[in-house]
Amino acid sequence: MKTINIIGAGNVVYHLLQALNKSSQYKIQNIAVRSLEKALDFIPEELIVTNINQLKKTDITLISVTDNAIEQISDNIPYKDSLVVHTSGTTALEILNDKNRRGVFYPLQTFSKNKEISFKEVPLCLEAENENDLNDLKKLADELSENVYELSSQQRKSLHVAAVFVSNFVNHMYYIGNEICMANNIPFNILKPLIKETANKINYLSPEEAQTGPAVRFDTKTTDAHEAFLINETYKEIYKLITKSIQKNV
Amino acid sequence: MKTINIIGAGNVVYHLLQALNKSSQYKIQNIAVRSLEKALDFIPEELIVTNINQLKKTDITLISVTDNAIEQISDNIPYKDSLVVHTSGTTALEILNDKNRRGVFYPLQTFSKNKEISFKEVPLCLEAENENDLNDLKKLADELSENVYELSSQQRKSLHVAAVFVSNFVNHMYYIGNEICMANNIPFNILKPLIKETANKINYLSPEEAQTGPAVRFDTKTTDAHEAFLINETYKEIYKLITKSIQKNV
Repeated sequence: MKTINIIGAGNVVYHLLQALNKSSQYKIQNIAVRSLEKALDFIPEELIVTNINQLKKTDITLISVTDNAIEQISDNIPYKDSLVVHTSGTTALEILNDKNRRGVFYPLQTFSKNKEISFKEVPLCLEAENENDLNDLKKLADELSENVYELSSQQRKSLHVAAVFVSNFVNHMYYIGNEICMANNIPFNILKPLIKETANKINYLSPEEAQTGPAVRFDTKTTDAHEAFLINETYKEIYKLITKSIQKNV
Repeated sequence: MKTINIIGAGNVVYHLLQALNKSSQYKIQNIAVRSLEKALDFIPEELIVTNINQLKKTDITLISVTDNAIEQISDNIPYKDSLVVHTSGTTALEILNDKNRRGVFYPLQTFSKNKEISFKEVPLCLEAENENDLNDLKKLADELSENVYELSSQQRKSLHVAAVFVSNFVNHMYYIGNEICMANNIPFNILKPLIKETANKINYLSPEEAQTGPAVRFDTKTTDAHEAFLINETYKEIYKLITKSIQKNV
């Protein structure tokens, strides 16, 4: 049985805990949090410490905090010569303090506390400085997920940019669709089968093959009408720019 | 048993035929197509006519052709005083020739010939000039789908703009994500669980609640790094504009 410390109490930790609780191979030793109150919502009290200095050495330490805080927190870990990893998509491995052996354990998924997910399907992207540590991370990752990848810092960084497009920006497209519906007294539900099928299609067709709509057909009568329809200047700009980009790639 | 003529042989007709074939209430009388060869791939030869003048009067005529051709084709229908509808999201009912009674039968879905769909889930948006015809369209729609809506031309037009955002533009975000992956030797598959969950989330959270990522967190360190990473000028512009738009709505 290996032991794990976690630092942080955000959405990633919430879902990671649920997955780790099912494991008989790994035991959580402690979880260091900033705010006791917030953490008590989902972390057993006996695991919580509110000062990072209270953490005792473990096999693996997972830092899951906002990107800007990773460096300082890794500096403040009160032990050395142990495996310490962060869970960030954008942060280089090297930002971690080298008093510990360094690695990355990046779960590529959109986590919200109020929405359960199947952790088994979450791609876990791993990086470590040496083969032994990479193997240890692989064992942990294989215990939690069926999609485990080894990626370099550079690959992980580019993957994160891609993820912003296919998830954060996609959600903003839903947001704009919802705004348009509300302004015209149309239930957003009417769009849900289309949203579902658009995402599902990508399992059968490449994004290039799957592209439909007035832009790819160069149906300027329709795209002009849509641009004229959009009163919100930012949405109009987005419409024009993405239409142009679709047409560039035909 | 009611009879139906169809004009067109595109993706919508392909999927509509499969749904209509399951019905015992409706019978396809004829399908008018431009190119016999293309149509033979999925339309029984005995139904096909290649000249619109060969069409005989039916209960309902469905025009499913490119938006620009709807008006002329409705002019050329060789009968009158029958119910004629188009399947376009953007075209007003009034564009149809008023020698026939006019309506709209708009299936809100992204159709590709090589990708089967469940027509029962496709929202069908109806419009007609009189109550009787609307009822007839409702009966047909209820036979084919569980999601039937009555929308005005103005509502349908705005819905189509919303659909472009949540489907066509979303697919272009997948396209860009795929491009970034390919350029960095990362399998696109790694993004698929994220794509699936992003679409699925919308069934539990509003797009506003579901928004995650560096933009909504105003994490400028990350968004600046992403902008610098993007070499393609159009993708960089898209990144900046959508980031700005997400932040405007926080």
